[in-house]
This record gives sequence, C-alpha cells and structure tokens, in this order.
Amino acid sequence: MLGGRRCLGLAAFVAALFLVADAGVTSRYRRKLEATADMPLDADVFRVPPGYNAPQQVHITLGDQDGTAMIVSWVTPNELGNSTVMYGGAPDKLELRAEGVHTRYDYFNYTSGFIHHCVLRNLKHSTKYYYAMGFGHTVRTFWFTTPPKPGPDVPYKFGLIGDLGQTFDSNITLSHYEQNGGDAVLYVGDLSYADNHPLHDNNRWDTWGRFAERSAAYQPWIWTAGNHELDFAPELGETTPFKPFAHRYPTPHRAAGSTEPFWYSVRLASAHVIVLASYSAYGKYTPQWAWLQAELRRVDRKVTPWLVVLMHSPWYNSNGYHYMEGETMRVQFERWLVDARADLVLAGHVHAYDRSRATRRSGRPASATPRSTSGTGRTPTTPGTATRTAQRSSPTASGSQTGTGCPRRTTTPTRDFFFFSFPTATILHLSLLLLRG
Amino acid sequence: MLGGRRCLGLAAFVAALFLVADAGVTSRYRRKLEATADMPLDADVFRVPPGYNAPQQVHITLGDQDGTAMIVSWVTPNELGNSTVMYGGAPDKLELRAEGVHTRYDYFNYTSGFIHHCVLRNLKHSTKYYYAMGFGHTVRTFWFTTPPKPGPDVPYKFGLIGDLGQTFDSNITLSHYEQNGGDAVLYVGDLSYADNHPLHDNNRWDTWGRFAERSAAYQPWIWTAGNHELDFAPELGETTPFKPFAHRYPTPHRAAGSTEPFWYSVRLASAHVIVLASYSAYGKYTPQWAWLQAELRRVDRKVTPWLVVLMHSPWYNSNGYHYMEGETMRVQFERWLVDARADLVLAGHVHAYDRSRATRRSGRPASATPRSTSGTGRTPTTPGTATRTAQRSSPTASGSQTGTGCPRRTTTPTRDFFFFSFPTATILHLSLLLLRG
Repeated sequence: MLGGRRCLGLAAFVAALFLVADAGVTSRYRRKLEATADMPLDADVFRVPPGYNAPQQVHITLGDQDGTAMIVSWVTPNELGNSTVMYGGAPDKLELRAEGVHTRYDYFNYTSGFIHHCVLRNLKHSTKYYYAMGFGHTVRTFWFTTPPKPGPDVPYKFGLIGDLGQTFDSNITLSHYEQNGGDAVLYVGDLSYADNHPLHDNNRWDTWGRFAERSAAYQPWIWTAGNHELDFAPELGETTPFKPFAHRYPTPHRAAGSTEPFWYSVRLASAHVIVLASYSAYGKYTPQWAWLQAELRRVDRKVTPWLVVLMHSPWYNSNGYHYMEGETMRVQFERWLVDARADLVLAGHVHAYDRSRATRRSGRPASATPRSTSGTGRTPTTPGTATRTAQRSSPTASGSQTGTGCPRRTTTPTRDFFFFSFPTATILHLSLLLLRG
Repeated sequence: MLGGRRCLGLAAFVAALFLVADAGVTSRYRRKLEATADMPLDADVFRVPPGYNAPQQVHITLGDQDGTAMIVSWVTPNELGNSTVMYGGAPDKLELRAEGVHTRYDYFNYTSGFIHHCVLRNLKHSTKYYYAMGFGHTVRTFWFTTPPKPGPDVPYKFGLIGDLGQTFDSNITLSHYEQNGGDAVLYVGDLSYADNHPLHDNNRWDTWGRFAERSAAYQPWIWTAGNHELDFAPELGETTPFKPFAHRYPTPHRAAGSTEPFWYSVRLASAHVIVLASYSAYGKYTPQWAWLQAELRRVDRKVTPWLVVLMHSPWYNSNGYHYMEGETMRVQFERWLVDARADLVLAGHVHAYDRSRATRRSGRPASATPRSTSGTGRTPTTPGTATRTAQRSSPTASGSQTGTGCPRRTTTPTRDFFFFSFPTATILHLSLLLLRG
C-alpha cells in the first residue's frame, strides 16, 4: 500500500518476516538455521490432482505491463489435451475463452508433460476472475484478482519470496506467506532446486510446480531467474541455459520491450518493477544492457513513484556465502539505478538478510515518503552519499530486530537510512539494497 | 617464435606495427589519426571472383585444438552448389575429400548467400595442403600450412589484428600484415563494422569476407567476438545476438569443451590460446564462467609454456574511449588469470594502444623468458604485485616508442614490466595487458 497511505507497502516476506504498511502485522516465526531435506516425492503437497490428464502445476503471471492480461500456465501429464482457458466473473459463468499454446522439452532422460501457456487479455483492473482449463478431460477451476490500474496512490501488497525450494521448511514458509496474504509475489529467483538432484531430476520441477500452485494459481508471481534455473549441464549434454525454467515460466517480456524472458518490467499499482538477469550477459552493448538503458527512460514516476528492481544475486552482501558474486553486475548497472533514483533493489541467493544504507535519494515525491519502523534507523552523516559496505550483524542482533515486527516510522524523514538484518534461514531469504535516501 | 628461440614471438601487428622475435624487423608506418571512410562497394578489394557461383569469402580457422583439422568456410552467391572440399599435397593432386554443411540466414531485408563450412580432419602437422571447392560450377584453389605440433620449443609467428573494418586504411593495414607475414592471426574482434551501415547492411559482411580472403584463405584466423559482431537490432526485429557472425565464422569450440562458439581455446605451437567473449554472460555459474574454470585446469605448461588470452574489450584502458567497459569482466576473471600465471591478455576495441605493467610472474619456465626491447621497461618497486592503473602516455611519446621497432631486450630480467603506447589509429588497434612478471 503505497502513496495514498504513505507507507512502505512493499511487504517483504523474508524468512516469514512480514513487513506491511502501517498495519502492524508481524510474526515472530523463525526458521531453523539447519538445512532441511527436500520433501519426499509422495509428500501430500506434491500430490497429483485427481482425474485423467488433470491440469497440474497451475500458475499465473502478468501478461502485459499494466495488469490487463494474465498468462495462465499448467501441465497436462497424460496427453496433450488442449490449451483453452475459459474465464469470467463467476465460477459458473466462464463466458470468455482464450486459446493458448503448448510446449514440452527433453532433459537428459526426462521428458516433460505438455506445458500450456494461455494469455487472457483485455481484463479489467481490480477485478476477480474465475478461470478453468482441462476441458475434454478433467476441468479445474481457479481464480485471481487483477491488479489495480497503475497510479501513485494505489494500495497494493507485495509478497517477496526467493530461494523457496521444496524442503519441509519451504512448506512452512509458503504457508506463512499464505496466512499473511499479499496480492502478488515478487519472486527473486531459485525455484525448485531440481538441479541439486541427480541428473537435475526434472521431476522436481514438476513437484515444485504442484507445491507452489496453491498460491501461484491465485495471484501473479513475478519471476526472476536464479542460478538454480540455469540447469546448465554439459556433462549430460544439456547446454541450453534456463531450459526447464524457460519452458515452464513465461514472463511478459515482449510487452516490456525486452527480447528475452529473463529481463523485463511490469507496473503494479504504484511500483514500476524491473527484473534483471544475473546470469545473462549484461556487458555494455548486450541486449540486457541496451534494454535497461531504454527502460529506465520509460519509467514515469508520476504514475509509479516507486522504482523497484529485482535480481537474484545481490550487489551487496556481507555474508561469506556467495560473497561478491554480484559485483560484476553492480559495476555495470549500479550507477544507472542510482541516477534513476531507484527506491529498492531486491535480491535473493545468499539465504541471509542484508540491508544497505540508502545510497542516494530516491525518486519518489515527498508525499510518498514511506512510514516504517526501523530498529536501526539512523541519520547518515553525509546525506545522499553512497555507502558501499554492507554491515554485518550477528544472528542474535538480527533476531532482536525481526522481533520488532512491522517497520513503522511515525516521523517522515527524508534522508534516513535503514539497515535490517534477519536470521539466516535455510531456503527463503533475501538481500535488500535500499537506494532511497 | 617462442621457447626455443627465447623471444617474445607474439608478433603484434598493431596499427601496422610489427613486433617479432629477435629478428629486428619493423616498420615506421603510421596510420593517420583521422577516421577514413569505408571503401566503396565497387572497390577492387571487394571484387566478386569470376565464374558462375564462384566460391567467395573463403576463410579458414582451426578445426580442433591442436591443428590437425581446419574449418574451411566460403559463400556461394547464386545457388547452393555443394559443400565439398578436395584437398591434398599439390594443386593437381587433391586426392582427399571432405563433405561440409551449409547454412544461410535472413537479416531484416537481406538474405545471405549459401554459407558453407567444411572441416578437413586428420591433417599432418607443419604440412602444406592445397584445397579447392566450387565443384560443379567454378572451382577455386587455395592452400594453407598446418601449424606445428604443440610443444615448448616450437617456433611460430602470430599476427595480431583487431577492429580491422573495411576502410581505405584497413586495406593498407592488411597489406602491411601480408608483407610481414605471420603464420596465423589472433583476431581480437570487430570484423566488418557492417552494423555502422543503415539497417546493418549485411552486404558489408560479404564485402569484408571478400576483402579478408587474401589472407584468411591461406592461414588460420582465430576469431574473437567484438561488439560489432552483436548485430542486435530489435528495432529491425533482429534480436539474436551474433547472428551474422555466428553463421559466417565458426570456431572449434566443441573441441575445446565449450558449448558456444564465442569462448574456446586452441593450442598453437608453444601457446595455449584462450578466447573469451566480452558480450556473452560471464557471471558466476554461467556457461562461460564454468568453461573457463575448467579450461584453466587443462592448460599444460610443459607443452604450451605460453598462456595467451584474447578478448575484445580490454580490462585495462587508459583511454577515454570505451573507458572502463571491460571492468565487469575483469572483476569476474582477472584473479583466475593471475593465479593461472597467464602471460598475455590481448584485447582490441579501444583503437589505441595500452600495455600494463606485469601483474604477476607468468607461468613460463625461465628458459622461455622473452627478450624484447622496451623503451619504458623499469623494475617495479614491489616485484610480483599487481598494478591496476594503466598509465597514460601521449601520442608523441607513443610515436617515439613505436619507432624503436621490434621489442628486444638484451638482458634477461625476470621482473621487469613494460608499458608501450602507440599512436591512436582509426581502425586497427589493440590493448595489451601483460601478466607476466
């Protein structure tokens, strides 16, 4: 809930931490530090829906930049079936129809099911739609609510998830997110971790799809590619980066003027969200470089006062794990984001929480100054200057900070900076680089 | 001529500068500072060979890592013809036969000719072969000499060319190279500059192919992709990076365990030559990153005491032009090359000459210490430490240095460093990062 309610509104579901607006909702949930095992293939959260050739692994993402289209994706396991989606305002009145396409892929000794993608267009903003697929065999029905028309005073609640995986803790984490309920998920990469299994067992992409369906079928998840999406395995003869991910998780990149699905943008409520690709080329002259340069010129802060950037590998990381891996992209792009007065840069990858000081004043108008609580909020001695060294804090200190609950600031500072730190979690964690100041 | 003759031996044809061994050959040729225009389409150097469907744009490159295979490429303009190459020890005894493949591509309003690639295998080292193609229509015959079997004391003479283009100066430069004659060309990127023409006029790829044939048909050119190979033009609907280049200039990347033609390696005489891709992904976990990590372990300094790395965008650049563009790749890979004790890192792109101090002792045995003359050779105060700041020198100083001719050192220093600088040239120029110390 941004702008109109003058609050941060970018609800960060970080290791089950719940930051939202000035509502004061929070949780004292802590994940264990230890890594936990992947849930077994016969875990109930992976169950195949009943019925012959029943659609499974249903998920949706935006189909255009502004939320009047939605891409519906699913898998039919037994035979092709069709790629039709019927949709409408009530479950018994699915009067609209869209035809999709299908694809499938081989990965070493694995052959995927039939992967369907269908774009529902010309949707109304802020409207609940029911949708169904599987006609001819087993029909399943879901629903979503389209995002509001982008504007500076439009409330919206984002979930922020990354590195989810499919361990027992992943299940607890997703449940926690569901209980606290955002309107859409900004997903900062690393989905299934199928590549951690022998031969990159792609059945683990299927189990993850079935696991995440309970949320991803009902609200758009905005996908970012992480290193576990690469599935680059020349030893298996698999040399096309992102092969399973690209077949399964489309993005509205063409609507954003991008030429690849791994970097793109959407506008959600008061936020212009840019997704960058940590594992694609970003050197000068490359497609991603050229796209981002043009994209930053397209941001209209009058419509979307928040400029939010997602990536997988963080530019700042005080943790030993994955230390400095984001440095090359930082060298290439940080100046641009600072000059563009980005507000938030969100990353995953490290499975531990960092938050930098503000590196420069953001581009939001004064009326949109966030209100949030920060246990460590301080006034920098040199307002507006960048600090490049992320601070390290102990898990104990982190724990005490997460315990303070929802960030809420009762004053309206313009140059405060923030540094949060949260306990290391096994799977779900994020790094935040806050560029506002 | 490395090792056995104890000389630098990496003949750098930089803006027609000729550095070679201890032979003392040189040139006082200077290119003009001003940019010159591309030669007109009807320039004699671009002439189409006579005869119906005559093969044109003939060029060769290594077909494996060690020089017992050669890829022969050419274009037939009128119809497919065939992809057969006949070859043998004399022009009238072409008793061996190889079947190639063909490809073609569309680029906006341009359709290429039939592009043939044929690999000649099981060649003997250090052997002259004649080869011909165009059977059925117009036959043309060429020849090459295979490189010697890799080994520490094997003389070989490299040409080093980058950013050649097809201006009037390009023609002078290529002629100068031909007059001084190396055995193979290390080409550090930017070939035709077709993308500087309206709609990326791909006819300029054809003219460049015909222009370069007079050398590239007779000795292997080792290709590096530059930014002018990207031909990324979404405004034209052309969104596949390197489309023309990849269709026209194959590399032996599979023999080098690479999954893309833009990064690979070859072994030529006493040099292990690694080609990197400045405009592909190189972040941690990416294919190029994974390949280079494994590749550096495969280098056998007993066989190839020289470790030479090519790329287009230099990691060190004291020029304002393209300043710091190579920084992101440097951040990612420099440590590896220093640890691997690389001897030379060669780049193009800037059209001006830089040469760094040595950043660490190289991996060559003492017997291979180069003898070369450097007007600015000094002993660093802290031997073995890296210096990261390339020095800037004036064109005047540069000119006087190039005038000293062939680098030749009469002493045998082990920790001297070098900093050469040459006058800015319009098209052909290189940056050198010397990692030996």
